[in-house]
Amino acid sequence: MSSVKPSPVSPIDAVLDQLQSRRAFLRKSAVAAVTVGAGTALAACKPESQGQTAGGTGAAAAPPLKSANDSDHSGGTNSPHPSQAATARAKADEMDAMHEKGIKAFPAKTEGKGNQVMAPTRVENGVKVFELTASVLQWETEPGKRVAAWVYNEQLPGPQIRVTEGDRVRVIVKNELPESTAVHFHGVLTPNAMDGVPFITQPPIKPGESFTYEFVAKNAGSHMYHSHHNAAVQVGNGLLGAFIIESRRKRAIERDVAVDYVMILNDGAHGYTINGKGFPATEPIVAKLGQKVRIRFMNEGMMIHPMHLHGMPMTVIDKDGYPQPMPWKCDTLNVSPGERWDVIVDCDNPGVWAFHCHVLPHAETPHGMFGMVTALIVEK
Amino acid sequence: MSSVKPSPVSPIDAVLDQLQSRRAFLRKSAVAAVTVGAGTALAACKPESQGQTAGGTGAAAAPPLKSANDSDHSGGTNSPHPSQAATARAKADEMDAMHEKGIKAFPAKTEGKGNQVMAPTRVENGVKVFELTASVLQWETEPGKRVAAWVYNEQLPGPQIRVTEGDRVRVIVKNELPESTAVHFHGVLTPNAMDGVPFITQPPIKPGESFTYEFVAKNAGSHMYHSHHNAAVQVGNGLLGAFIIESRRKRAIERDVAVDYVMILNDGAHGYTINGKGFPATEPIVAKLGQKVRIRFMNEGMMIHPMHLHGMPMTVIDKDGYPQPMPWKCDTLNVSPGERWDVIVDCDNPGVWAFHCHVLPHAETPHGMFGMVTALIVEK
Amino acid sequence: MSSVKPSPVSPIDAVLDQLQSRRAFLRKSAVAAVTVGAGTALAACKPESQGQTAGGTGAAAAPPLKSANDSDHSGGTNSPHPSQAATARAKADEMDAMHEKGIKAFPAKTEGKGNQVMAPTRVENGVKVFELTASVLQWETEPGKRVAAWVYNEQLPGPQIRVTEGDRVRVIVKNELPESTAVHFHGVLTPNAMDGVPFITQPPIKPGESFTYEFVAKNAGSHMYHSHHNAAVQVGNGLLGAFIIESRRKRAIERDVAVDYVMILNDGAHGYTINGKGFPATEPIVAKLGQKVRIRFMNEGMMIHPMHLHGMPMTVIDKDGYPQPMPWKCDTLNVSPGERWDVIVDCDNPGVWAFHCHVLPHAETPHGMFGMVTALIVEK
Repeated sequence: MSSVKPSPVSPIDAVLDQLQSRRAFLRKSAVAAVTVGAGTALAACKPESQGQTAGGTGAAAAPPLKSANDSDHSGGTNSPHPSQAATARAKADEMDAMHEKGIKAFPAKTEGKGNQVMAPTRVENGVKVFELTASVLQWETEPGKRVAAWVYNEQLPGPQIRVTEGDRVRVIVKNELPESTAVHFHGVLTPNAMDGVPFITQPPIKPGESFTYEFVAKNAGSHMYHSHHNAAVQVGNGLLGAFIIESRRKRAIERDVAVDYVMILNDGAHGYTINGKGFPATEPIVAKLGQKVRIRFMNEGMMIHPMHLHGMPMTVIDKDGYPQPMPWKCDTLNVSPGERWDVIVDCDNPGVWAFHCHVLPHAETPHGMFGMVTALIVEK
Repeated sequence: MSSVKPSPVSPIDAVLDQLQSRRAFLRKSAVAAVTVGAGTALAACKPESQGQTAGGTGAAAAPPLKSANDSDHSGGTNSPHPSQAATARAKADEMDAMHEKGIKAFPAKTEGKGNQVMAPTRVENGVKVFELTASVLQWETEPGKRVAAWVYNEQLPGPQIRVTEGDRVRVIVKNELPESTAVHFHGVLTPNAMDGVPFITQPPIKPGESFTYEFVAKNAGSHMYHSHHNAAVQVGNGLLGAFIIESRRKRAIERDVAVDYVMILNDGAHGYTINGKGFPATEPIVAKLGQKVRIRFMNEGMMIHPMHLHGMPMTVIDKDGYPQPMPWKCDTLNVSPGERWDVIVDCDNPGVWAFHCHVLPHAETPHGMFGMVTALIVEK
Repeated sequence: MSSVKPSPVSPIDAVLDQLQSRRAFLRKSAVAAVTVGAGTALAACKPESQGQTAGGTGAAAAPPLKSANDSDHSGGTNSPHPSQAATARAKADEMDAMHEKGIKAFPAKTEGKGNQVMAPTRVENGVKVFELTASVLQWETEPGKRVAAWVYNEQLPGPQIRVTEGDRVRVIVKNELPESTAVHFHGVLTPNAMDGVPFITQPPIKPGESFTYEFVAKNAGSHMYHSHHNAAVQVGNGLLGAFIIESRRKRAIERDVAVDYVMILNDGAHGYTINGKGFPATEPIVAKLGQKVRIRFMNEGMMIHPMHLHGMPMTVIDKDGYPQPMPWKCDTLNVSPGERWDVIVDCDNPGVWAFHCHVLPHAETPHGMFGMVTALIVEK
């Protein structure tokens, strides 16, 4: 309809209002390691039956270098001196401390938050009008790391636009960039003149000028908007956002979703990011035990990102906004550039669950987790 | 059957006979920007209600560099001098002119055309005989860019072979390359001796020698043929082509296809290409409003290419020549090396629609679109 | 159940007992080129009607460099001197000899074999207990190429753990590495405390120490275990293995599988490998005509690997251990990092069938096939 409230399903913003308490929760989890699972029979740190047990004198700490068989061509199998073992342990402790520091900082506070649901600027004769201004600013992707970014409305990703199937939509784009631009509504079935491809469907929007797009939002689903002029550079720099068209006839599987989360993946000039931030500045998804979470994956980068959720499967329901003929399950979903995939997670397993790109160099270095890592937190 | 006419469905060749007029059409589109959509209420360039509007004095053209919040740690927010704005506009105009030049050149004329449907050289006792000669030549991938290419029958991709399910097929390969070769019919279910893997199923074909492959085309679908000897080099250099086995029992969704288009993606020694050419020398796909287009994607490269069509969804019907259990829709289809995907586009949205790889560095640079970009033109 | 026999379906180990004879078979195939298909009417080397035929004087061996049309801007079309042709032939022979040598060495013997089915170390009160020790050794990936590897139980991949749906499983991990580690059971639905993510669900396992994981194997399917600490390095170095949970209620399509083969793909510090070895040290899959083979693809690397089987389609039944709603066929299956795909091959086409990653630089160089290449051998 012409309703202007941002999102009919529990918006992530509402959920994130509780973030401070959650952050304390997460820190406690990190220290206690098993807070969430403590109610089960399997407490991770019980030293008697399982969990961490001291390893004798630590003589095994500096591992011997053996070959697969007991053959004589290997480089030798020196037993380490106790001093070597102590050095190895000190190095391990040093590395672990870096890893712990990252985890404990999560979710780390940074300046700026992208992908915020945007109410229409106004509604004129039933037309939902959105105003987007493209400009350049400094964006903090993780604590202390500021990069030059090209953004819509001073957000990276740009504001999340949500309309309803059948809505007439007007998007006024003002260009405050140092070069021309244009906006393509990726996945949205617009008339050709509204397709946003300079010199094919419109002139480029020169610096200081504006362009108005207008169309009826025909096809429900998870779509995107982004620059289509010098796009490898402009999208790489941050000119991108989510464009969600909500269905008027929700399927049963959509109706009981408690958390509707848009996850935009990127790997451009700002490094590996989820919704414009790298771990530990990424945002956890939070749900209560028994709730259903809808995740709308969108890849605005130039590499694949097979997203892996720990602890629970994902049920794939939509591809590029179109229903899959029959939903199917997975725990690792490959999201390629330009693709959108919608999944439902039935949060039946309590705890803090890692959620990351499984191209491991996008998620971890010897200094700890970074980049495309977040968590799904299922609260009891 | 044993019919030797190239293609039972409207061949792209026939469609391309109209190319000159289409080219004029496209140029007009590029200038007028909204020719196609002009019949709708949404004319892109109406300056009053929407479209390009001059932005005051242009003072906003050189954007201020701000941080996301009004914090004091950003690099400062200088108001640009009018001369700076003028410089920015001049730079934007310069970049836009390069982009426009590329678009207006499309489809650009180059020497040589690959992927042409090949009639059998002869039919002997009901056997369709095709002769392929592998040789080296200079190939023009875009206007003025000539590269050394290894090709079949002086085409890149090699000639498109189309036979019908159940046909007996003989392919005589003559090697005029500087090294040995062999042909693998990728996806075609041949007897082992016809599989084209040197030292496993046959000796390599030495320079100056020939080899004859013969088999019954059992499995309908979109397949390929390419070198399987020193293949990373030889296929990368261009020894590849489409091998289509048409079904005898077409599904309803196949029967009313007006345009059957083979799109071979590549990223080897010749850069990012579609059917052996880079934009603007790529070939548009042209259909009339209401027609159905079948696109047979084939990836002969070594990278993923998620192909994105603007304006209309693609209905995926086949993977590697095998029907998907239920067709499904998307607008961005990831095509991985060696894969073939068949889709149907119902051309219900008139206009010139960009159609490109969504790994944006495969499609655009600051100098304009290049590489894996083409268009689907839906004529009213 | 609590049965401890390694694998209920014909284990690859049993099949490989026949390897010596098969190796002889393969060598014979390589020499005779058409042994397998000889029973058909299509003998590859019949010189009269098809197959290798001498090419006149060989004058074509050094190919002329032509342009696509008879244009005058090409680099010239020198007829080669006979001596040039002879040189070209000599070079071709030299390259072919390298290729032949690789093929004839297949399957080449190397030290060490990974992915061996592991019986539980013991069963305690119905709990299947597995002990894994992580250590560093030298691993031979192909004949004469030894690399430093981080491994479980001195195998790369680590031992294949197979349990049955509903089993209670205990995995005791001892760390003999020079740094801390932790084990994540990728795809297995464990309680949070058993999820293996240091500082979120457990402390890291320090060098010389141990940690015990315990859970009920709830979800049948093809899963993995691997390090989740400094994982880009540790998994890249080899800390990975298969974790199969067999279903208690097998589907019809699963029940008549004769060979159940786990194929772990990797591209880390050890190059392009299948089950820890590069061609020609990879292991062929062997089946008899009419048998069904189940292949469980797992990608533990950081790149896509679209696996292409020659000669027969693959029917995809599972993604990440979850049944696809309807099985579907292909011949090239893209396996992304972290993904598992289960397929069934109906071995109805006898012969030695190449089976390789279709990112060709992962499979072949001018020196011959290497890396991610193996074969499916269908014996009559």
